[in-house]
Amino acid sequence: MNQTIETILSHRSIRKFKNETLDQKTVETLVKCAQAASTSSYQQVYSIIGVEDSEMKKKLAVLAGGQDYVAENGYFFVFCLDYHRHMLSSVMTGADITATVQSMEGFIVGTADAALAAQNMAVAAESLGLGIVYIGGIRNNIQEVSDLLKCPDHVVPLFGLAVGVPAANPGTKPRLPMNAVFHHNTYKSDDELKNELQRYEQETAAYYAERTDGKRTAGWVSHMMAAMEVPKRTFMKDFLNKKGLNKK
Amino acid sequence: MNQTIETILSHRSIRKFKNETLDQKTVETLVKCAQAASTSSYQQVYSIIGVEDSEMKKKLAVLAGGQDYVAENGYFFVFCLDYHRHMLSSVMTGADITATVQSMEGFIVGTADAALAAQNMAVAAESLGLGIVYIGGIRNNIQEVSDLLKCPDHVVPLFGLAVGVPAANPGTKPRLPMNAVFHHNTYKSDDELKNELQRYEQETAAYYAERTDGKRTAGWVSHMMAAMEVPKRTFMKDFLNKKGLNKK
Repeated sequence: MNQTIETILSHRSIRKFKNETLDQKTVETLVKCAQAASTSSYQQVYSIIGVEDSEMKKKLAVLAGGQDYVAENGYFFVFCLDYHRHMLSSVMTGADITATVQSMEGFIVGTADAALAAQNMAVAAESLGLGIVYIGGIRNNIQEVSDLLKCPDHVVPLFGLAVGVPAANPGTKPRLPMNAVFHHNTYKSDDELKNELQRYEQETAAYYAERTDGKRTAGWVSHMMAAMEVPKRTFMKDFLNKKGLNKK
Repeated sequence: MNQTIETILSHRSIRKFKNETLDQKTVETLVKCAQAASTSSYQQVYSIIGVEDSEMKKKLAVLAGGQDYVAENGYFFVFCLDYHRHMLSSVMTGADITATVQSMEGFIVGTADAALAAQNMAVAAESLGLGIVYIGGIRNNIQEVSDLLKCPDHVVPLFGLAVGVPAANPGTKPRLPMNAVFHHNTYKSDDELKNELQRYEQETAAYYAERTDGKRTAGWVSHMMAAMEVPKRTFMKDFLNKKGLNKK
């Protein structure tokens, strides 16, 4: 085990940060780390918007569903899928790349590129003793977020990443048993998975019971199923199509 | 700068590995690192299939477009978007989660979850002195890859990750100028971006010219535009719909 692996394995999301702004050098290091990630066919289909303006951050916190730590942190980054640079490039060379940009495949590439870059930044930040939390909640009001950040067509804010000096130290959260996530050569049987899910339900029920003085006794399975019965952000497809993406 | 950031900044994809198989302990460490990544609302919408069977690896190498390093490496992982566990869970509790699973939003969540996990594994592997390369090519024949790996409905092989002891040492590849990727508060102007793109075109043209003894003189802009004129994997939407995903 080395320091990097130790950093990775001790990840927990931080939702309370000290009032200490990241200095410019640290921000640049984090962005460089993000840019060093692999990218599909060298396309680099993402942008990072660093939001420092405190009024904008407050607005984003509301739009993300009232999460204070979107406004109160050391720095707030928004990771976007971005084909706008490619569209500008196509004007420069006269190429027609519309079919690529509009495709479902192109959307997968951009989402993956943005996530790979973001996770590099997350690990780099944690290696510096900083804490992080991803904010999928910026998709709650994606049109308003996109307008606020002045994202042109073919640019979609996918998630935020709040970074800062931790002001709380929650423990790591138990992940699914490795045997429920890792398959050998072929995808495993339902019977095996069901056993793992039952085991995990008990493990997480005990985890929550301990942390809530017995008030919460539902485990991962019960909790996820209740949450997933209500579909979220059902406007996403329309929004993406309007942005010129994910059409076919 | 610490070791983790040094590791991240020195990333380059490795496409030639020594004939040394990863030991079981290393594989487990890498999977644990993947699992430690952030996951949207604790949903963990991904699976990892470790392909060790050499016949299967050879088949995957062909299906991915004849990339030898898919078969010849220390270990080959396939990262899948995976709602199958949630579907099994829904039978256990009687919840109806179809609308969530079928949604575009759900597809974003799963793709991001898989990518965050994969990038943790990539960084962990590189911190151990191993090399990695992502294989988006497994989507070239996604139906056949899905069948080979016996992926049920609601499971999509998104990309592979070949890991192993490097047998070549290519340099890092120049990324887009930070100013073309990183925006401050709001997305920047087209004029500024165009300047950066022109600068990058020259920088990458020089980079390629040097590496090909002057045979290749096109930079990133020219090269990307030529590649993106032909849309790839146009069957993706149909395939995903058939898998019960990304329908609305």
